[in-house]
Amino acid sequence: MGGLRTLPWYVAGSQVVGLACVVITGVWMGHYRGGYAWDGSAQEFNVHPLCMVLGLVFLYGDAVLVYRVFRNESKRSVKILHALLHMMALVISIVGLVAVFDFHSSSKISHMYSLHSWCGMLTFVLFFLQWLLGLGFFLFPWASAQLKSWYLPLHVFFGLLLLVMSVGSCLLGITEKLLFNIMSTYSTFAPEGILANVLGLLLVCFGVLVGYVVTKEDFRRPPNPEEEALSVHFKTLSEGEIPSSP
Amino acid sequence: MGGLRTLPWYVAGSQVVGLACVVITGVWMGHYRGGYAWDGSAQEFNVHPLCMVLGLVFLYGDAVLVYRVFRNESKRSVKILHALLHMMALVISIVGLVAVFDFHSSSKISHMYSLHSWCGMLTFVLFFLQWLLGLGFFLFPWASAQLKSWYLPLHVFFGLLLLVMSVGSCLLGITEKLLFNIMSTYSTFAPEGILANVLGLLLVCFGVLVGYVVTKEDFRRPPNPEEEALSVHFKTLSEGEIPSSP
Repeated sequence: MGGLRTLPWYVAGSQVVGLACVVITGVWMGHYRGGYAWDGSAQEFNVHPLCMVLGLVFLYGDAVLVYRVFRNESKRSVKILHALLHMMALVISIVGLVAVFDFHSSSKISHMYSLHSWCGMLTFVLFFLQWLLGLGFFLFPWASAQLKSWYLPLHVFFGLLLLVMSVGSCLLGITEKLLFNIMSTYSTFAPEGILANVLGLLLVCFGVLVGYVVTKEDFRRPPNPEEEALSVHFKTLSEGEIPSSP
Repeated sequence: MGGLRTLPWYVAGSQVVGLACVVITGVWMGHYRGGYAWDGSAQEFNVHPLCMVLGLVFLYGDAVLVYRVFRNESKRSVKILHALLHMMALVISIVGLVAVFDFHSSSKISHMYSLHSWCGMLTFVLFFLQWLLGLGFFLFPWASAQLKSWYLPLHVFFGLLLLVMSVGSCLLGITEKLLFNIMSTYSTFAPEGILANVLGLLLVCFGVLVGYVVTKEDFRRPPNPEEEALSVHFKTLSEGEIPSSP
């Protein structure tokens, strides 16, 4: 029913929605919030949402998708692409974090008091840990097959969880930003409020599309006997079984 | 590694965390926000968070968990319990929705302008549709095995997605409520703000525990040959294959 034929449509849909999220965030901060700067002002803050949506949502989501998009490439190449996209996501999200801490310091605003900051920081720290563990376990050869087979289902679970937490943190950030800036007109359906709400729904949409593609059984990578002999097989592992062949 | 032995601990943990969420929401609204009433006042609003956390998070999550908790009971009994818990979740969340619409009307506040309301209403509408479809497809005998086998993976995917969306909507609601009521003291780490932030993290924790239990391969229901002959087998279906035996 549908099967693999529909995969390109879901992937294309995710890219359109993901890019729309980045563009709308850019327009929101650029047009409604006074543009960008790096001087401790509110314009420096504006760098924060753009970097987080680009890094921890769009690039992060694409890093997750590569195993489905490049179904027939060698596992090693796809792993390297996965790690590189996550490295870009990491660097861009660090720039986004520096922007907001810098803005808070310049404006004498407390750090880390809001639910948005708690969820966002938790997401970032877990993402950084997951990236380090992924690099150590899967890209370099020192981990044993047994250790890999123990960690892989956790890596897959936390990988999707962190995308969900990224999207959730963005939605909390959108709500905070709107209530700080346009509380009096938000309830009159001001255009800025509607634009930001639409951005929130599109971020949810992106997360749902990526989540659907990576969890749908029909879209899994086909088993590859050659790779199976070399390394531990993804499908078997993600189902939590110890591979029967060494 | 671990395997089925750890299931009771995860389930117990989810119940402790879930109940803590309900109690903390009750205390927050009861102690800090003036208690409960049904007269269009802010005390009527307070019914809203309590009902949504109890209905669309705690009971909803428990309804999802029953297939893992009652692993060896008959599929039909578990299905009925699943449907009943979801019915309770539905009724309680309707009370919660009426409370907030009533409060907005009495206080001349616009309806449905915020990202919280958009996400929350989307979650509720999809939940209601999913409940109706689940009832029609799985509890009453009129759907064909082929139709069931097409819908089951979607039901499972949307079931978990809606729990995530419920938790996310609660976090948006927490952020809104804090910024409406204690914006000036939130950044000074006011006790109410910290309590509500902790509630947010516990809600995330509940969602993660439920999500982990229902997606972990080791925790799936064991195949039951008797049921297999009678109805379509869950595991096979949730992996997207057409059962080989009728």
